[in-house]
Amino acid sequence: MSSLATDTGDIALLYTKWANKPVYMELLKERGMPVVDADELAEADWQRVTFATVWSPPAGLLAKCPNLRVVQSLGAGVDSLLAAGQVPQELPITRIVDPLMAQRMATWVVWGVISWQRKMEDYAAAQRSCQWAVDIEARGSNRDNAEVAVGVMGLGVMGQATAKQLLAMGYQVSGWSRSSSSHSECTAAGISCYAGQQQLEMFVRAQDVLVCLLPLTPETTGIINAQLLSWLRPGSAVINGGRGRQLIEADLLGALDSGQVDFALLDVFDHEPLPPTSRLWSHPRVRITPHVASMTTMETAADQIAANYHSVAAGKGPLEANLVDRNRGY
Amino acid sequence: MSSLATDTGDIALLYTKWANKPVYMELLKERGMPVVDADELAEADWQRVTFATVWSPPAGLLAKCPNLRVVQSLGAGVDSLLAAGQVPQELPITRIVDPLMAQRMATWVVWGVISWQRKMEDYAAAQRSCQWAVDIEARGSNRDNAEVAVGVMGLGVMGQATAKQLLAMGYQVSGWSRSSSSHSECTAAGISCYAGQQQLEMFVRAQDVLVCLLPLTPETTGIINAQLLSWLRPGSAVINGGRGRQLIEADLLGALDSGQVDFALLDVFDHEPLPPTSRLWSHPRVRITPHVASMTTMETAADQIAANYHSVAAGKGPLEANLVDRNRGY
Repeated sequence: MSSLATDTGDIALLYTKWANKPVYMELLKERGMPVVDADELAEADWQRVTFATVWSPPAGLLAKCPNLRVVQSLGAGVDSLLAAGQVPQELPITRIVDPLMAQRMATWVVWGVISWQRKMEDYAAAQRSCQWAVDIEARGSNRDNAEVAVGVMGLGVMGQATAKQLLAMGYQVSGWSRSSSSHSECTAAGISCYAGQQQLEMFVRAQDVLVCLLPLTPETTGIINAQLLSWLRPGSAVINGGRGRQLIEADLLGALDSGQVDFALLDVFDHEPLPPTSRLWSHPRVRITPHVASMTTMETAADQIAANYHSVAAGKGPLEANLVDRNRGY
Repeated sequence: MSSLATDTGDIALLYTKWANKPVYMELLKERGMPVVDADELAEADWQRVTFATVWSPPAGLLAKCPNLRVVQSLGAGVDSLLAAGQVPQELPITRIVDPLMAQRMATWVVWGVISWQRKMEDYAAAQRSCQWAVDIEARGSNRDNAEVAVGVMGLGVMGQATAKQLLAMGYQVSGWSRSSSSHSECTAAGISCYAGQQQLEMFVRAQDVLVCLLPLTPETTGIINAQLLSWLRPGSAVINGGRGRQLIEADLLGALDSGQVDFALLDVFDHEPLPPTSRLWSHPRVRITPHVASMTTMETAADQIAANYHSVAAGKGPLEANLVDRNRGY
């Protein structure tokens, strides 16, 4: 039914290096989009592109489309699209907002909190030497959920879902974000909220577990550094599901070596894949997952991209729920 | 203020081999109980014992107390007290019912469910060889909480708290118990309930994760055997927080070796401490914790024991909430 080769209508561009690109091509075609793989688009046809779905496009790719109306991220993150010169200021950027991605992230974070709270890495070490290590938590000295303070940095869709899940499990939950605009719902739910650089130290000083789910912006780059880690309660945990460049890896390794940080669960890294030479791989208090904490379901992503495309094609503009606020960075 | 040595009043016996016995002695004294350590009780004074707080007492110990009115377990479990001849039929048995113990158990179970669902043991293995193993869950193939069926065996205080916690996280939750007496509240919460030997196979066949939180009775001894494990969905997980004798360890090892069971989290064992010779220690798909999934908080236990003692001393009998139904076994 595709009439792309013969007509002169709009084109919905798809650009990604992901191995599942052919699956996305099919899913978007099934949803009525005139989708064309950027690698197969003839020079003369770039002017026909009105909608571009992309992940980490090379510099200059989008500039080749003079009639582009919307740039759609193939995932939840848009940091590569917000880089200077990548997408013209007047073009709207949209992204995938999948409620299940937030649940996936929350589930991954919960695992990390319990791993630290219940000393599961210590029990794993004892198991390797066949030790029945009842002394790891002396009877009665274990820490109950209400005695564990978890601080969530970033109160977007993922941060809020994670904070609420932890709260429902009985943990003490606080949140921090760059501005207080998202706080009213969190505060109503029972989450203590902090905002801005001024309240960052006060927020961090109260935490046993620090969870980073921030978007990557100039303001959040390197935010988890030696000074911030020194503010945490001694023997605390750090969980990073945000972006690798938000955490100074050398500073975290220092805090782990000194015992200031007792455990880290990391899904994102400064360089991905994490180089084999990184000391994080072998540190006994670090658990690594390869950027899988919260993956997009292809069907959900395709549904949202297509709904957005059809809204734009009908002249109604991009869908509000998927629209990125460039000032917030997500 | 203790007047035990001089008066002829009632005695509240304490018997345990736990290292924290002196702490319990103090906590119970502080709560107004005329407590005496069984190891220090003169022969002539055993007839003064009206209340006995015990953990795994030797055979014959309680028979030395002709005026005993209640036997109080120092923990949640009472299986050693229900053994034939241990406590005369007419004597009430009470136990600790600590809501936080249920939360502790639920938290430990949640960790096990996520460990299996999110393939955390596979990621740990990849990490040991510095592998960025994105292929473990190919993009889009991860299993969401609503796609994981968790079956909880045993719907007492711990089983219900665990089932409700999992349900709140979005998992598909079913429950099985020996009778349907505890089902109405679970069913109302959205938990599919099964009862009795007749519905056991149907229940198990629907599960990805089997969680055992049953009390130990003749009926539940060896209930998790080769046949039951064969009913599970292939590649499933087994989590045992009940009692070791409910699970045939050789059968579980067979199911793990064949891949029928992909992961096991075990807190209780046929023999505790688990002998260093057990193959469970080194099996790559088994995680072991040393009977710490749900520990009694000493303060909470002491509060309940003392409240129970004072009720009995005032002639009001043992507190309903702590009373064991010998037919149910808890």
